[in-house]
Amino acid sequence: MRRLRLGMVGGGQGAFIGGVHRIAARIDGQWDLVAGALSSDADRARASGLELGLDPQRCYGCFRDMAQAEAARPDGIDAVAIVTPNHMHAEPAIAFLEAGIHVICDKPLAASGDQAQAIARAVRDSGKLFVLTHNYTGYPLIRQARDMIARGELGNLRLVQVEYLQDWLTEPASNKQADWRADPARSGAGGCIADIGTHAFNLAHYVTDLRPERLSADLSSFVPGRRLDDNAHVMLRYHGGAKGTLWASQVAIGHENGLRLRVTGDRAALEWAQENPNEMRLSVFGEPTRILTRGGPGTDATRIRVPPGHPEGYLEGFATIYAEAAAMIRAAIEGTAPPGGVHAPGIEDGLLGMRFIDACLNSSADDGAWTSI
Amino acid sequence: MRRLRLGMVGGGQGAFIGGVHRIAARIDGQWDLVAGALSSDADRARASGLELGLDPQRCYGCFRDMAQAEAARPDGIDAVAIVTPNHMHAEPAIAFLEAGIHVICDKPLAASGDQAQAIARAVRDSGKLFVLTHNYTGYPLIRQARDMIARGELGNLRLVQVEYLQDWLTEPASNKQADWRADPARSGAGGCIADIGTHAFNLAHYVTDLRPERLSADLSSFVPGRRLDDNAHVMLRYHGGAKGTLWASQVAIGHENGLRLRVTGDRAALEWAQENPNEMRLSVFGEPTRILTRGGPGTDATRIRVPPGHPEGYLEGFATIYAEAAAMIRAAIEGTAPPGGVHAPGIEDGLLGMRFIDACLNSSADDGAWTSI
Amino acid sequence: MRRLRLGMVGGGQGAFIGGVHRIAARIDGQWDLVAGALSSDADRARASGLELGLDPQRCYGCFRDMAQAEAARPDGIDAVAIVTPNHMHAEPAIAFLEAGIHVICDKPLAASGDQAQAIARAVRDSGKLFVLTHNYTGYPLIRQARDMIARGELGNLRLVQVEYLQDWLTEPASNKQADWRADPARSGAGGCIADIGTHAFNLAHYVTDLRPERLSADLSSFVPGRRLDDNAHVMLRYHGGAKGTLWASQVAIGHENGLRLRVTGDRAALEWAQENPNEMRLSVFGEPTRILTRGGPGTDATRIRVPPGHPEGYLEGFATIYAEAAAMIRAAIEGTAPPGGVHAPGIEDGLLGMRFIDACLNSSADDGAWTSI
Amino acid sequence: MRRLRLGMVGGGQGAFIGGVHRIAARIDGQWDLVAGALSSDADRARASGLELGLDPQRCYGCFRDMAQAEAARPDGIDAVAIVTPNHMHAEPAIAFLEAGIHVICDKPLAASGDQAQAIARAVRDSGKLFVLTHNYTGYPLIRQARDMIARGELGNLRLVQVEYLQDWLTEPASNKQADWRADPARSGAGGCIADIGTHAFNLAHYVTDLRPERLSADLSSFVPGRRLDDNAHVMLRYHGGAKGTLWASQVAIGHENGLRLRVTGDRAALEWAQENPNEMRLSVFGEPTRILTRGGPGTDATRIRVPPGHPEGYLEGFATIYAEAAAMIRAAIEGTAPPGGVHAPGIEDGLLGMRFIDACLNSSADDGAWTSI
Repeated sequence: MRRLRLGMVGGGQGAFIGGVHRIAARIDGQWDLVAGALSSDADRARASGLELGLDPQRCYGCFRDMAQAEAARPDGIDAVAIVTPNHMHAEPAIAFLEAGIHVICDKPLAASGDQAQAIARAVRDSGKLFVLTHNYTGYPLIRQARDMIARGELGNLRLVQVEYLQDWLTEPASNKQADWRADPARSGAGGCIADIGTHAFNLAHYVTDLRPERLSADLSSFVPGRRLDDNAHVMLRYHGGAKGTLWASQVAIGHENGLRLRVTGDRAALEWAQENPNEMRLSVFGEPTRILTRGGPGTDATRIRVPPGHPEGYLEGFATIYAEAAAMIRAAIEGTAPPGGVHAPGIEDGLLGMRFIDACLNSSADDGAWTSI
Repeated sequence: MRRLRLGMVGGGQGAFIGGVHRIAARIDGQWDLVAGALSSDADRARASGLELGLDPQRCYGCFRDMAQAEAARPDGIDAVAIVTPNHMHAEPAIAFLEAGIHVICDKPLAASGDQAQAIARAVRDSGKLFVLTHNYTGYPLIRQARDMIARGELGNLRLVQVEYLQDWLTEPASNKQADWRADPARSGAGGCIADIGTHAFNLAHYVTDLRPERLSADLSSFVPGRRLDDNAHVMLRYHGGAKGTLWASQVAIGHENGLRLRVTGDRAALEWAQENPNEMRLSVFGEPTRILTRGGPGTDATRIRVPPGHPEGYLEGFATIYAEAAAMIRAAIEGTAPPGGVHAPGIEDGLLGMRFIDACLNSSADDGAWTSI
Repeated sequence: MRRLRLGMVGGGQGAFIGGVHRIAARIDGQWDLVAGALSSDADRARASGLELGLDPQRCYGCFRDMAQAEAARPDGIDAVAIVTPNHMHAEPAIAFLEAGIHVICDKPLAASGDQAQAIARAVRDSGKLFVLTHNYTGYPLIRQARDMIARGELGNLRLVQVEYLQDWLTEPASNKQADWRADPARSGAGGCIADIGTHAFNLAHYVTDLRPERLSADLSSFVPGRRLDDNAHVMLRYHGGAKGTLWASQVAIGHENGLRLRVTGDRAALEWAQENPNEMRLSVFGEPTRILTRGGPGTDATRIRVPPGHPEGYLEGFATIYAEAAAMIRAAIEGTAPPGGVHAPGIEDGLLGMRFIDACLNSSADDGAWTSI
Repeated sequence: MRRLRLGMVGGGQGAFIGGVHRIAARIDGQWDLVAGALSSDADRARASGLELGLDPQRCYGCFRDMAQAEAARPDGIDAVAIVTPNHMHAEPAIAFLEAGIHVICDKPLAASGDQAQAIARAVRDSGKLFVLTHNYTGYPLIRQARDMIARGELGNLRLVQVEYLQDWLTEPASNKQADWRADPARSGAGGCIADIGTHAFNLAHYVTDLRPERLSADLSSFVPGRRLDDNAHVMLRYHGGAKGTLWASQVAIGHENGLRLRVTGDRAALEWAQENPNEMRLSVFGEPTRILTRGGPGTDATRIRVPPGHPEGYLEGFATIYAEAAAMIRAAIEGTAPPGGVHAPGIEDGLLGMRFIDACLNSSADDGAWTSI
């Protein structure tokens, strides 16, 4: 079985998330990176590509050239990973989809609803696959939680609490990562709510499969001069009566990537935190709380790479998204049915995330009025 | 120095919180329980009193008789502890205050705003002391947190997150403790929000000294047939720009008394949880998180009874309220200035708690509209 | 039911453990402190007694006078608490036992084997009760563990790991508490091993009921100039084939009172730590680890004072020893059978502890040779 | 910069650790697996190789053929990974070293001292590199601890506690992984002590750089019929006066891979546990304990792949060994000095581990006599 061929847009020298995508693609041995438009600066794009061992012919200065050229090669890429800032997702995604190439795209989907809709149309029109790297969904215990809830082990869901806390924007910051996230032109109108709030929102939705209906949001910008929100308090109502809260913050001192999920039903509750992702607390009403471990007793061990007690982390969760993208693409290539048990987030999750951002911005601007998502 | 003489209203056979008050009063050796109207049933009141070793003459069947008789005795009680359900706080409190006897009262202050105001008037008119047993304020590390914030060690406060989670009302319940709490006639119009939400609200206020201005609340009653709320999501805005959230629940499976506080400033943050109250996390921006222990390095050891590493718990925190009540009463008896460093909650905290309950009920009824407290 | 009358030897101004005993005696309302020989200095003894509100007639300058006088009074003490340094346990204990008064004594039993044997003879000859305050045995979850093991819930025991870690003697120390503990004349030949090693050893024995047979010890004195051990590594063999390790240290930086017990059988294992004593981990082979809470699901709630989630601590555990002493004394007074479920440590535990200290000292001196206990 | 070419001996279908090595080699993009003698069964070797996408020409049925053939190819492997059971390390290691090929070998070094010495001779004679995959040394916070201790931040070391606890051999087991580990002919004379005890021993040595001098061991085999030890209690003495304990167990119910290290100096102490490897506790005497996070404040961030708060795990630690092997081999190829900051374990660590196993076996057989390592 040949490795799939991956291209990349963005992720050149000095970038962060591109390197993560590349490791994630390597871990399970399903992908080879063979082409890239790694920077919007042509020289830098080429230098970055050579550094990664790419064929100089496939170090492109422009993603449009790349889409065209790769589509024309017999050994052209099977998929492209788009790892640019939010405002630069739509154009390359559409270009590659139109060229008939599957897309793996970083989150959030886009910097505006218009861009998001345009991507969605291109996905629909092209019939190509679109995977959104809400990577936290790839953690084995998140899959475990999702399965348990789907099987009814928590009973009817009542409460969903999720928070994503960071502290790196506690003070005015100025660096490559901070700058574009603080710039509405590149990030979109949402700051913290778009950057990490969408991860939290997606995770709650992914695990519970509850349909979010309305929310009431209170966004803040605590640091003087900051143009986008750096803290968000959100109350949510889900279809069927469940309720939730979401707290996203980039000024929460003491937190690095404090993504934490609590789901409560009328029979049991689960609690999980990303910073120690190999444990999950399960509390069945009237019984002692149990500590489930990744692959340990009482859990499903089918999505793990190493035995329980040997921690898997962020990169392995991310790799699972790439492994699932590979499985879907192989099925598409072979014309077989999509493989079972594959749940990587896609275009619908991206659109829902955009509606979440908009609803938060609108509700907060309207003094917290309950707003449809 | 003689022990102070304590009377008690409520707390007879089968009650819970009365026994807690009695242990708390004993721990520091400042109080002797000498009189009681322990039940509204005269026989039960007498039997309960005898069981506790009270003089039969001072086992009263009616709190009014007790107030009158004790006020008339040369060895009458110095203070009375009121440990009845919420709707039965006002009448005895007023009776004892009018009889010139100091009052120690369980929380919340009353079952209605009218009752609360009546108590406040009686406090003012009598000039007697009134202590409200928001006992969680008595934990040494809560005092530590309060002092650190007052000294500016967290910088300007931005965020206050507090939650109080229980699961004992996950299913329809019927027992002495559950029944009165679920009955609007005895508990007041607030359920979970009054019973434990007020503790959470009080703790946040006590530690931060921030003035709460407005809130947006979403109260729920998840269990069919339940007449009062069993879950509350609240967003808060404090004077000066700080914001907060409060989650109180009695259907949060896996939690016994999960009272947890997080306070974030622009310089540092604190995190504390009641179930392991001898530890507190201090995160100064840009430094590793520190684990402060009760009386350990970097903390004030003046309010502790045993050395660090020997845990103090709920009863000791409660005892501190009684010790402070004793210190204030001794000062009043001797006509000296109130002692320094005494911060037991009082009537103002009780009134604020009642306004909090009302604001939550009103906001929730008004679809979460921001409501003044 | 009248309160029992307690006397105290030691525990005057400046002492530590005497105050702990007094709080412990008060918590459950079973005892009144009415007499004391609180210091070997007569003036200090009197001043200390008055400060505690004792009748001046019962503030004794000498424990022998006190034993005689109290034995002669119709309202004489029911029991005496001995809270002096180790070398001053035997004389007062024997004096009170010979005077027909029950004894509650701090640990270790004595400063030498000869003293210990003399106490044991006096206990036997007098027929009076002798309670040794190995207070950690009073924690509710320790009782829970003991019961579970006795019921066979762990299967056949294989392993017992216990450690008691402090750091207060990391550097040369000079204060009242450190001085007598570092002085062989007052502490006995064991330092850390006697002061806290015996607590660890006792706890392991108490919970498992395994009979220790032999040990191999490696004692150290890390601080230059220190005359007694400040660290002990011990390997143990129990009757029936179980094995264990014990680590006691007073130079273990980062630990305050890190007493921690792990017991492993062929079916399940338990883990408990004194610094957060309201939780215990139960791991049944092949099942997820469960978190048992004091009084929570899956535990016995008969020895708790407040509901699960409201932490009890060191003082409450200590108070249980006093409550059990009271129950035994009441039975003795009334001539009834000793009450069921009472398991406070006694003279046999004290003697076993002394043999443990001796075996450690001998083994360590003999280069770790396995030595009978 | 070309990828290095890796061969593998062992690790065919049904094996465990071979797959781990392959992922570890891929993570940092330094290696391509191009050849293998993946099984001692030629058909299985070939099938396994094809499954991994190897060139059929380079799927060898015999490691000797492979060593010869690869040494002769211009594009022959740069290094071979040996992932067979212990007794099958020496022969292939020597064959490849003699063929001039660098070796990466799983631990422990061999099944006997003779085999170990033979490997060491071959390393010396060949001048080739030999890397032993004591993978736990690759965790970033282990490197951090090593650096801090080397810089004297803990002061003079006094105590080293290490434990490695598993429970998978609690009952008689029969499967591919258990069988060879329980068979002296394949595993060597040490069971648990060789399989995981050596990891613990190596980690303590690696982090502290203390020279172990003597030990006293008590090995047990708790499961009836088991021929090798399944539990080990060891006391250690290090050059310079530090002392330690080591507990390794495969019957410690509730533990998956509970490798935990505590190092105490006269100034500070560190504590780290493999199952949550992104945190380390640092306690400086007289200061609150700090929680260091991988790459977080107060730590060195040079060996991390993703930002603090995004957990790295077992595979990333393992990958660091492969990355360091690559760096050393590149330097050897280029004839430059070995790169700085590279600390992967090598042949000396392997020999020391063998002496540790022997000393444990001898001491335990001699009733715990202190035995030189």
